[in-house]
Amino acid sequence: MKAEQSIVFGVNAILEKLRASPDEIVEILLAGEAGRTVELEAERLRVRVTHVSRELLDQLALGERHQGALARVAAFRYWPVAELIDNAFSSPPPRRILILDGLTDPRNLGALLRAAEGAGAQHVVIPKDRSASVTPTVIKASAGAAHHMRVSRVTNLRQTMKQLKVRGYWLAGLEAGAETTIYDRTYPERLVIVLGSEGHGMRRLIRQECDFLVSIPMFGKLGSLNVAVAGAVFLYEVLRQERNKDGTDS
Amino acid sequence: MKAEQSIVFGVNAILEKLRASPDEIVEILLAGEAGRTVELEAERLRVRVTHVSRELLDQLALGERHQGALARVAAFRYWPVAELIDNAFSSPPPRRILILDGLTDPRNLGALLRAAEGAGAQHVVIPKDRSASVTPTVIKASAGAAHHMRVSRVTNLRQTMKQLKVRGYWLAGLEAGAETTIYDRTYPERLVIVLGSEGHGMRRLIRQECDFLVSIPMFGKLGSLNVAVAGAVFLYEVLRQERNKDGTDS
Repeated sequence: MKAEQSIVFGVNAILEKLRASPDEIVEILLAGEAGRTVELEAERLRVRVTHVSRELLDQLALGERHQGALARVAAFRYWPVAELIDNAFSSPPPRRILILDGLTDPRNLGALLRAAEGAGAQHVVIPKDRSASVTPTVIKASAGAAHHMRVSRVTNLRQTMKQLKVRGYWLAGLEAGAETTIYDRTYPERLVIVLGSEGHGMRRLIRQECDFLVSIPMFGKLGSLNVAVAGAVFLYEVLRQERNKDGTDS
Repeated sequence: MKAEQSIVFGVNAILEKLRASPDEIVEILLAGEAGRTVELEAERLRVRVTHVSRELLDQLALGERHQGALARVAAFRYWPVAELIDNAFSSPPPRRILILDGLTDPRNLGALLRAAEGAGAQHVVIPKDRSASVTPTVIKASAGAAHHMRVSRVTNLRQTMKQLKVRGYWLAGLEAGAETTIYDRTYPERLVIVLGSEGHGMRRLIRQECDFLVSIPMFGKLGSLNVAVAGAVFLYEVLRQERNKDGTDS
């Protein structure tokens, strides 16, 4: 058994983990009948399944809703940022990178990972300090999408931004109230999307590092959207433009 | 004091309630210094403020994070669906209506209300049964946007859909896996967007009532987005097309 361990709970999150990296699963614990699909898939992949009491799952899941299924896995593996930087020279390079400057709500981080995965943006960079990390709650909120993502954790976000810049990336900061909206721009081949924290947006030095700022247009009385929703709307606008350019009708 | 009461908690949610309908606030309870902006705004609007212990707030908020501020308000006022139907003949009529077929997660409902408010879609219809209703948790998750929305609750969603249809609305169902994507369509003047529940999507009869189905294109390994994120991406695509038609560059 590995020294560092983590848990994944919820039927869908475990199924995604089974699909993405079954070898990282130490053991699956099931209570009741709800986890039947998990059990079948685990048997097929020769992952160990143990039936336990619902009370034990409640304890292990620390009060989160586990749907009768929990997996003990090797701790979430972050992607070394050095590889991300190196990959900028690979062919094809990652086209879309997401930088999250200090999201603190695990559900927002999870929703964003899921949206980014859906939009085909596999690379995410988060800071080591003052940020939610990829915990079991985040993985559940991502519906397991986190397992398909390459998430890097760095101590100096600004340095990573500079490194990406010299490798040909443009840095687009999403900021409520920015004069240019996401629809007023066309986006370059290599794009880094930068989002700030829920309460305070991007830190000043991070904002200054961006090449340009854009906003989601707001037509009601409120000034901003939830950060995960805003990030998803931006990611999908970039994608729409790309589809359009490729000759798909829109 | 009104017979039916509800609570709103969190600084931003209360500020929005103060802005939208101060007359519905019975009293604001504050603990500590965090609610200072709330207090100033409440004084300006002559809403009663009482300082209480943090323990009392903890109890009243039933374990939710209240940030030291809680308001006792008249229960959330739903918009009579008859008025929504009548308004279809008003000038201008509501252009965008959101129908949510059985969302069960209060945070998803809140996030959707916030996104719809941001996208300028003020009218939402939810079913009375098997659906989250507009509770304090939903209002908080909506960052107070719920106060600016017209939410109708109906016993028969299908009947409402038929009524809107004969009044010139097109019904667009958002469904993961639908062949046509949201980008492959142009949208009519009067549009109803229909979203299903988190686990199961739209019910069969509701889906059948739709004029057409569209999906969000998925470029990763997962099959769908979070329902609030998907709804927001769709709402904003409709908005983008509308902006475009109005001659704004995109």
